[in-house]
Amino acid sequence: MKKHYCIQFLIIISVAVFIFAYTRYTGYSTSTPPWATTKTHRNTNLRSTSIFDTTVRNSNHHFTDTPLHPLDPLTVPEINKIRSILSTYEPFSSSFPSINTLSLDEPEKSQVLGWKTGDPLPNRRASVISFLDGKTHLLTVDLNLGAVTDDVVNVGSGYPMLTTEDMTSALQVIYSDVEFNNSIIARGVDFNDLICAPPSPGWFGPDEEGKRIIKVQCFSGQNTSNFYMRPIEGLTVTVDVDKRAIVKLTDTGRKIPVPKETNTDYRYDTQNPSSDLNPETNPMSMEQPKGPSFTIENGHIVKWANWVFHIRPDIRAGMIISQAKVRAENGEYRSVMYKGFASELFVPYMDPDQSWYFKTFMDAGEYGLGATAMSLVELNDCPRYSYYMDGVFATADGQPFIQPNMICIFERYSGDIGWRHSEIPAMGLDIRESRPKVTLVARMAASVGNYDYIFDWEFQTDGLIRIKVGLSGMLMVKATPYENVYDIANADDMTGTLVSENVIGVVHDHYISFHLDMDIDGANNSFAEVNLVKEKTLPGESPRKSYLKAKRKVAKTEDDARIKLKLYDPSEFHVFNPARRSRLGNPTGYKIVPGGNAASLLDLDDPPQIRAAFTNNQIWVTPHNKSEQWAGGLLVSQSKGENTLAVWSDRNREIENKDIVLWYTLGFHHIPCQEDFPVMPMVSSSFELKPVNFFDRNPILNAKPTFQKDLPVCFAASSS
Amino acid sequence: MKKHYCIQFLIIISVAVFIFAYTRYTGYSTSTPPWATTKTHRNTNLRSTSIFDTTVRNSNHHFTDTPLHPLDPLTVPEINKIRSILSTYEPFSSSFPSINTLSLDEPEKSQVLGWKTGDPLPNRRASVISFLDGKTHLLTVDLNLGAVTDDVVNVGSGYPMLTTEDMTSALQVIYSDVEFNNSIIARGVDFNDLICAPPSPGWFGPDEEGKRIIKVQCFSGQNTSNFYMRPIEGLTVTVDVDKRAIVKLTDTGRKIPVPKETNTDYRYDTQNPSSDLNPETNPMSMEQPKGPSFTIENGHIVKWANWVFHIRPDIRAGMIISQAKVRAENGEYRSVMYKGFASELFVPYMDPDQSWYFKTFMDAGEYGLGATAMSLVELNDCPRYSYYMDGVFATADGQPFIQPNMICIFERYSGDIGWRHSEIPAMGLDIRESRPKVTLVARMAASVGNYDYIFDWEFQTDGLIRIKVGLSGMLMVKATPYENVYDIANADDMTGTLVSENVIGVVHDHYISFHLDMDIDGANNSFAEVNLVKEKTLPGESPRKSYLKAKRKVAKTEDDARIKLKLYDPSEFHVFNPARRSRLGNPTGYKIVPGGNAASLLDLDDPPQIRAAFTNNQIWVTPHNKSEQWAGGLLVSQSKGENTLAVWSDRNREIENKDIVLWYTLGFHHIPCQEDFPVMPMVSSSFELKPVNFFDRNPILNAKPTFQKDLPVCFAASSS
Repeated sequence: MKKHYCIQFLIIISVAVFIFAYTRYTGYSTSTPPWATTKTHRNTNLRSTSIFDTTVRNSNHHFTDTPLHPLDPLTVPEINKIRSILSTYEPFSSSFPSINTLSLDEPEKSQVLGWKTGDPLPNRRASVISFLDGKTHLLTVDLNLGAVTDDVVNVGSGYPMLTTEDMTSALQVIYSDVEFNNSIIARGVDFNDLICAPPSPGWFGPDEEGKRIIKVQCFSGQNTSNFYMRPIEGLTVTVDVDKRAIVKLTDTGRKIPVPKETNTDYRYDTQNPSSDLNPETNPMSMEQPKGPSFTIENGHIVKWANWVFHIRPDIRAGMIISQAKVRAENGEYRSVMYKGFASELFVPYMDPDQSWYFKTFMDAGEYGLGATAMSLVELNDCPRYSYYMDGVFATADGQPFIQPNMICIFERYSGDIGWRHSEIPAMGLDIRESRPKVTLVARMAASVGNYDYIFDWEFQTDGLIRIKVGLSGMLMVKATPYENVYDIANADDMTGTLVSENVIGVVHDHYISFHLDMDIDGANNSFAEVNLVKEKTLPGESPRKSYLKAKRKVAKTEDDARIKLKLYDPSEFHVFNPARRSRLGNPTGYKIVPGGNAASLLDLDDPPQIRAAFTNNQIWVTPHNKSEQWAGGLLVSQSKGENTLAVWSDRNREIENKDIVLWYTLGFHHIPCQEDFPVMPMVSSSFELKPVNFFDRNPILNAKPTFQKDLPVCFAASSS
Repeated sequence: MKKHYCIQFLIIISVAVFIFAYTRYTGYSTSTPPWATTKTHRNTNLRSTSIFDTTVRNSNHHFTDTPLHPLDPLTVPEINKIRSILSTYEPFSSSFPSINTLSLDEPEKSQVLGWKTGDPLPNRRASVISFLDGKTHLLTVDLNLGAVTDDVVNVGSGYPMLTTEDMTSALQVIYSDVEFNNSIIARGVDFNDLICAPPSPGWFGPDEEGKRIIKVQCFSGQNTSNFYMRPIEGLTVTVDVDKRAIVKLTDTGRKIPVPKETNTDYRYDTQNPSSDLNPETNPMSMEQPKGPSFTIENGHIVKWANWVFHIRPDIRAGMIISQAKVRAENGEYRSVMYKGFASELFVPYMDPDQSWYFKTFMDAGEYGLGATAMSLVELNDCPRYSYYMDGVFATADGQPFIQPNMICIFERYSGDIGWRHSEIPAMGLDIRESRPKVTLVARMAASVGNYDYIFDWEFQTDGLIRIKVGLSGMLMVKATPYENVYDIANADDMTGTLVSENVIGVVHDHYISFHLDMDIDGANNSFAEVNLVKEKTLPGESPRKSYLKAKRKVAKTEDDARIKLKLYDPSEFHVFNPARRSRLGNPTGYKIVPGGNAASLLDLDDPPQIRAAFTNNQIWVTPHNKSEQWAGGLLVSQSKGENTLAVWSDRNREIENKDIVLWYTLGFHHIPCQEDFPVMPMVSSSFELKPVNFFDRNPILNAKPTFQKDLPVCFAASSS
């Protein structure tokens, strides 16, 4: 096996918020801290690192990008201008601030809705979150005015995402600590193989309040790229990020061996190609000899079939879909959704141990789904004919940073059927009508440390939007002395499954909150629960004793729209426009259609559950409020959860015929199994937004069947 | 619009059980009953009708088919031999019996499991259900012995599926009834446009016991192929099939107009091609220039990637998958499932009215999912490179009948990902590994009158099997005087949604019971519920207050395995082999992973719910018993439900370390909407069978990525 990974000195990518960056040990002490290197790197190359360059399709360095739509993300020139503005901003003038996040401050919704192509853009503004001298500043930078127009110091709990500099300096602190080094020596881990990671600490009461901390845990990268499977168990170092000092070091696991590297690597060039466990299948490809049917206008407007929407990368949400509109039979583009995105991602591990209890991650707010979204792998993450979109972000010192090929957009035909009917021959009717289903997918994949989250937004010509989350990557595992279940006295007491020798895959959950600002035919909408209720027939009324009836109830306030899904008390959940009716007088709307799901069972007063209280319900509805974007709060790290969706909803505001936001919590329970080792086969779940009396009839009634003459003529490539 | 459908005299396909055959009115009285014509037709042509011939790929008439596997379906020569045996069987010798169903009587499981390629086949036997002189005979015909070896007369309730002859004779009865004809005249429906259908009556107490009945309802086919949208409301004629007499005629709807034909047709040649409601997308195709990677051996053995299984068409289940095995890392083909199929399909409509209460269909047992599975539409129902398999069935008089292209098998690449991981650049590791997901799909589509059910069995290389049911076709609608919701005094009292002028789409459910005879590494298996339970931490144990723990409980008896899914009391459900452990000592098994689902809410003592009591739970486990195949009972028509899955399960037999069968109920609630008119966009739901510690590690770890050189070179066809 080749040692690809034995790089003695780190090249660190300094995305401002990119903190879940595991780092290799770089020695007891080093005169050149890693972030110095980082800065050098940043100044000379806008690209992430050279390792990606071989696969970057789009060689645009975005030096001259211009925003063309009010929701277009900040451009490289704009980021440069923001840095310039901030460098002359009085409170920060003595030292350039550490920028934790820098992103578009969207114009007011009314401005966006009123804007038309050709109009001048509303003032371009950036939201900057900056941590300086123990305070979090929430800054607004107006690019048109060339000034900082707002500077609010946060007074509540919670810190911004840590920067790479925060993280690397914390790691430097432990690398020069004698007790830490003794612990590593005691495990027999070579310092050259040492890899440490800074998982976020959550919030568990006052002990760790008032200071920014991280909890460092380490792994052995010896003889494998998959260090995640080789944890140094029980060693946890709590570091005060700002004081650069160790708060606490616990080492409870010296008797627990570091699991072996056997069978951990997953890279293609480490596999045995002669194995026929998974035989090769013949080449297969979704082919479009005339190219895909969508266009990308002005960089971010996707037009496909009867859909048009705006899409942009976002450092925190990963991918934001805006102003999704679908064309109706009369040619009108009708509004469906103003804005949709993954707002938070909660991952609680189910182990109360000292080195595990705090693993209750909030991946969007603590790490950033965009910050951790690597370049997609062509032909494998996304099919041929995909369009790739780069992410343009900023580093901690305000430099533009490009994440190439972060989002892909592609058209899909998977052999599925849009609609069909065959008539019974006895009718004398020769009817065999069937229409193939072609859809459009926008995809990104966040690699938040060990886990990979694939986000798909799939648009169908029948008006349906399917939002799917897939999980792959590596388990977060716990080392154990046991090599076999038979050796374990009380296997039921384990907090997970033995997935390899000395390796436990710990039980955990995943919850993703989706913010869905629905605007069905306009901003003012209502939310209705259409409950299916069992009715009993009256004596003599019918030979039937019971039947179901749909009972529609419109929610007046937020309280009415906190929904726990119930298999035996089922409902449909409609967002509709009370000012618009269908031709037949039905309310025109969309329903949210849950698929497989899971609910959080943690105590409501358990600190992680308070912080992730958006998981208390599967559905919520709130009035649109620009400040209520992030279900776990704006400042999530170490927050106490005072500023979450649950808190907002508790105000019980009116939501009838208002500009409302629908929230959906998609959940997964994950009891690991051996098949998840060393890398997990994809598991996915989805939900749908589906038109309900929005169209006057089936909108794909006149879809064209596929005819033989439409199909491409293909040959195997000579080299295959 | 061209009048394709104006055929004055019917060609009726006489599949033995094909009774949901709507027929056109053929005049007050006719000296030549339709079934005479049918017989003529059958005698001269094995093919279904000439209308299909243009699209039949496979021109094999199956005259010389030979069974090569114990589970191969009956062949044309075998069916001919069975007819010959029956014609000389003493009790029937005076008149050839009416054959209601005729299908393979599977050898005992032990015989099948013991059989190896090259061995002589176990005796070939047929199960024949025949109704004669008021009695249902359950016959076994042994082809090797050339004799009827068993003839059991049914003593319980329930009748076999009706034959086309039963149905057409019942329709003739009403066509010559003066009151019926007066009702039609009163509605102003031209007799040339009259189309009548024989929906099954269910069972609703003693009034209709002791005689085979159908309830006839009619439609206007004037100016549309979609007569379903033009019901003649309130007219229901109950006919005694054997006496050929009307039992009861109710006509409550003369004031309700027959809905207009406007916008009802859905055939491509009736649509306006210039409409841009649903613009054309560029041609797109899953291309496999080297062809698909699966082979079909001996007609019914599918080999693909690491899977091998037997597949056969079945008149009742539609499609039966048998002996599914997956190859493990050591090359061993390991048993996963002995037999899997759709066992019953319950569709209760939610309207207690006289003309609606009985619409509580049991589509598999009353109509047959295979009997109603038409030829698939190439390139639209199934993609290019599909393999098509014909169904070989028998008519009521024992003649072989071919349903061409009834099942398709294809390989799928939809742009999805098998597994992936990208490493954080800060690690210095250049890791961006991703594997495309290619799967194998076996598909059929049953058109049970108005509704189309698409059944997909999808196999993944990671060992997962996904079973998906899609719903399309036409709503069953109710005519109403109202044209607009605003005109309805109490719209909440409607039993459905106004989906077009004068047309209500009535609320209904769909429940499909899947029989899954799991044989994980052998026949004897156990069922475990792995319950996720909230644990509270002890004071001082942890800063966490709560976490989840997986608690495994093995079911002892059937009672332990009657499962209602609960979002807030979640479990995994494992079938495992207690005699086999993984390398690490974990039980090796498969889990059933529910997706979206719905539960029946009808009263447990409501007659339709008693008959469809398999919907009382989402999961059941029973010991393997050859006589327990059909969740709603063997003889479903008018049955009282004494012989259902719920009754069997009530015996509470032992199921630990036994040959067990897992049953899953997949449900849909359907509140119609205007988008469902005049034909419904596909709605689907699925569940999965997923390996859990069955493989020692990720079985697709060494899957190959797609490289550019593997992709085909394609050109648009010159004519497209």
